[in-house]
Amino acid sequence: MSINAAIDALATVLGDRLSQSKSDLAAHGQSETHFDPTPPDAVAYPRNTDEVSQIVTLCAQHHCPVVGYGAGTSLEGHTLATSGGITIDFRNMSQVLEVQSGDMTVRVQPGITREALNEDLRATGLFFPVDPGANASLGGMAATRASGTTAVRYGTMRDNVMALEVVLADGRIIRTGSGARKSSAGYDLTALMVGSEGTLGLITELTLKLQGQPEAIAAATCAFDTIDAAVQAVTATIAMGIPMARIEFLDAASVAAVNAYSKADFPVTPHLMVEFHGSDAGVAEQVERFGDIALDCGGSAFLWATKPEDRTRLWQMRHHAYWAILASRPGLNVAATAIVTDVCVPISRLAQAVSETQADIDASTIPAPILGHVGDGNFHAILLIDPENADEKHAALDLSARMAKRALALGGTVTGEHGVGLGKLDYMAAEHGASWDVMAQIKRAMDPLNILNPGKVVRLN
Amino acid sequence: MSINAAIDALATVLGDRLSQSKSDLAAHGQSETHFDPTPPDAVAYPRNTDEVSQIVTLCAQHHCPVVGYGAGTSLEGHTLATSGGITIDFRNMSQVLEVQSGDMTVRVQPGITREALNEDLRATGLFFPVDPGANASLGGMAATRASGTTAVRYGTMRDNVMALEVVLADGRIIRTGSGARKSSAGYDLTALMVGSEGTLGLITELTLKLQGQPEAIAAATCAFDTIDAAVQAVTATIAMGIPMARIEFLDAASVAAVNAYSKADFPVTPHLMVEFHGSDAGVAEQVERFGDIALDCGGSAFLWATKPEDRTRLWQMRHHAYWAILASRPGLNVAATAIVTDVCVPISRLAQAVSETQADIDASTIPAPILGHVGDGNFHAILLIDPENADEKHAALDLSARMAKRALALGGTVTGEHGVGLGKLDYMAAEHGASWDVMAQIKRAMDPLNILNPGKVVRLN
Repeated sequence: MSINAAIDALATVLGDRLSQSKSDLAAHGQSETHFDPTPPDAVAYPRNTDEVSQIVTLCAQHHCPVVGYGAGTSLEGHTLATSGGITIDFRNMSQVLEVQSGDMTVRVQPGITREALNEDLRATGLFFPVDPGANASLGGMAATRASGTTAVRYGTMRDNVMALEVVLADGRIIRTGSGARKSSAGYDLTALMVGSEGTLGLITELTLKLQGQPEAIAAATCAFDTIDAAVQAVTATIAMGIPMARIEFLDAASVAAVNAYSKADFPVTPHLMVEFHGSDAGVAEQVERFGDIALDCGGSAFLWATKPEDRTRLWQMRHHAYWAILASRPGLNVAATAIVTDVCVPISRLAQAVSETQADIDASTIPAPILGHVGDGNFHAILLIDPENADEKHAALDLSARMAKRALALGGTVTGEHGVGLGKLDYMAAEHGASWDVMAQIKRAMDPLNILNPGKVVRLN
Repeated sequence: MSINAAIDALATVLGDRLSQSKSDLAAHGQSETHFDPTPPDAVAYPRNTDEVSQIVTLCAQHHCPVVGYGAGTSLEGHTLATSGGITIDFRNMSQVLEVQSGDMTVRVQPGITREALNEDLRATGLFFPVDPGANASLGGMAATRASGTTAVRYGTMRDNVMALEVVLADGRIIRTGSGARKSSAGYDLTALMVGSEGTLGLITELTLKLQGQPEAIAAATCAFDTIDAAVQAVTATIAMGIPMARIEFLDAASVAAVNAYSKADFPVTPHLMVEFHGSDAGVAEQVERFGDIALDCGGSAFLWATKPEDRTRLWQMRHHAYWAILASRPGLNVAATAIVTDVCVPISRLAQAVSETQADIDASTIPAPILGHVGDGNFHAILLIDPENADEKHAALDLSARMAKRALALGGTVTGEHGVGLGKLDYMAAEHGASWDVMAQIKRAMDPLNILNPGKVVRLN
């Protein structure tokens, strides 16, 4: 392996679109959470697929690691260059290539963010529904199989990516999937690439499914006395088959943090934030049915966000909750950092998972607000730690490990939507058993030199 | 490779659950369509996953081919033992293992058929929605990524299989997926196995998503003057986002065949058969909206199938359409056989695909009624041929090849739901390009001896 030789070769091809500036390396070597900075040796800014292919081909010749980079919003250290090498930043590949209105699909480059895409689609009456909160890039969202607040209705990236263009580890450019809504033509390489975190190929183009803007939208918050009551309302709502567009849970600590950060005044008790999409009559019916369930579970009257700007503000508050929670532990010498958990369990075990987690947090010294996409059985405890306190980090990692173990014991997964990255790698053997070996077999077959985001998702020994 | 040595070893393990009787071999060596009989050397009837693992382990030792077999309803020769070897018939593994009502999931063995499963679920208020027409086994449906009449609303097997147990080519037993509704924990092996046609592993258990029985169901037929008008109505309906549970197209020739076979009296013109699921108010709204569209396109008044038994009869007629069409060409020395096409195109190209196909059929001498799951852009021409007439078979294969080429030119796929098997193998290079080589790489990594359903899906050279 000669990273320097690769850099020399790349500089010839890319000119000033290959950067080794300190600020560039540092910016691409940090993460949103607790991981230590791990910069690459250089950052490449390709303008098109052919350039990505050239970069990967040269890196393969020199056995040089290649890490894809979108908006840098990963919570699990996906983009950290733990073996050094080249980071490919897709910011110059962020165009909408084609809106296919008649098919309700769009072709985009990987660097475009979900907000930019939806802004671009505004006049079409269509929107892309997957919403992980952060303004992530579509390439990154596909690579981590992201989901978020709307997955309960519209599915995850697994369900919303129809086709891909991918640069493989040897520089070959392939297309997976087609423009058809379904196909039985062989192995589902689209699904294999989605969630592979840049370890099997680099996504250079995506065809995404779009949705029609709903005729009617209604959003509301509803306060509950206890976590159990709120979770019961969720379980009953899902069992009734009410097609909620969003059904988000925040515990009292999360609500307090949101109030402080976003200058809101929600009562400081567990809340559900909900949204309904449909025809006028359909939304009215959903609201009534959900209202009955919430009432049965002791929920408060709804606080409606009726105007579009009120809805925008409501979901902005939800999307900023991570930052609100980070800011909710002041008084340290440095800013608090977070270990983010991401368990997802069968909906029938959600109440148990949340209440056992809450008890575990209460018995610890770690502040850890809980919130999540409970309609999917997915929730996060944000474990707030003092980065200068090793004992605290240790205790938080233990707490996180117990959450992971609990999720697996309940038939769930340690990561509902954030991905494996570095943070969840240690749980993969327990979650998958021999299936994890199969993932490694596939990785070896598709990237025999192990140059694509090495050290992530699988272990090769 | 020593198939005989494998059979000797298997006989010791399985006793009389290994059969070499002529009738058994013949039954497992035939297909529903035009392929020549290709029997295996023996048929194994395992009772549990451990036995499947033992069988595959022994076959691997002797480099003996292994072909999975469910209900034998494949239309593309998937189960034909083109290299000889052992067919594993899953009929003794057809139990419902656990209904998880709270999670709306069910664990089943692969041999159970969809009708048996839904019969078993009847008292739960839940049902499994994927309906390919034929009473296929769930293992086979997963293996071919089947879909059918309800995919427009509920998705295909890709969307409805949550988790699998699989026996790999070396006998290892793995579990893919989890009980969680979503996960970002590594490569999506469930999706990789679904649609792999028994070439990467043998499915020994499935966890399936279930749906609540809709509060209201309405089904109807609607006649149109022309194919174009019917297809226009479909395109408009999908564009409006009306959540059709079924929207099926039959051309006049298909309707005539159904009338004759099922003693019905539909007007002999192109038809749509539709079904609506939802709340009472929701169904009423859908019916009104679809009704407006149908009227705009010159459709007849709806003929309603209101009673459950009328609905059952309607969909039975649809499900028997393949047999009806086969019976619609009498007067040959032997029964007509069929080459079945299965193209699926972007919905915006559906009208063009259907009309060009119709013109191509009209210009040929081959009777070929058209019908399909048009809401997905998927339709079939059933090319009826005299099995004793080689010229006719040749002409039909040419027609089929032109349909495939047309679908690819329009951005679609040559197989929307039937799978590759033997019948669509020749189109894979054109459909996938370099991606087909990647499929072969994966096959080699997971089945280096090429014992699992050899000769299907990929070519290894």
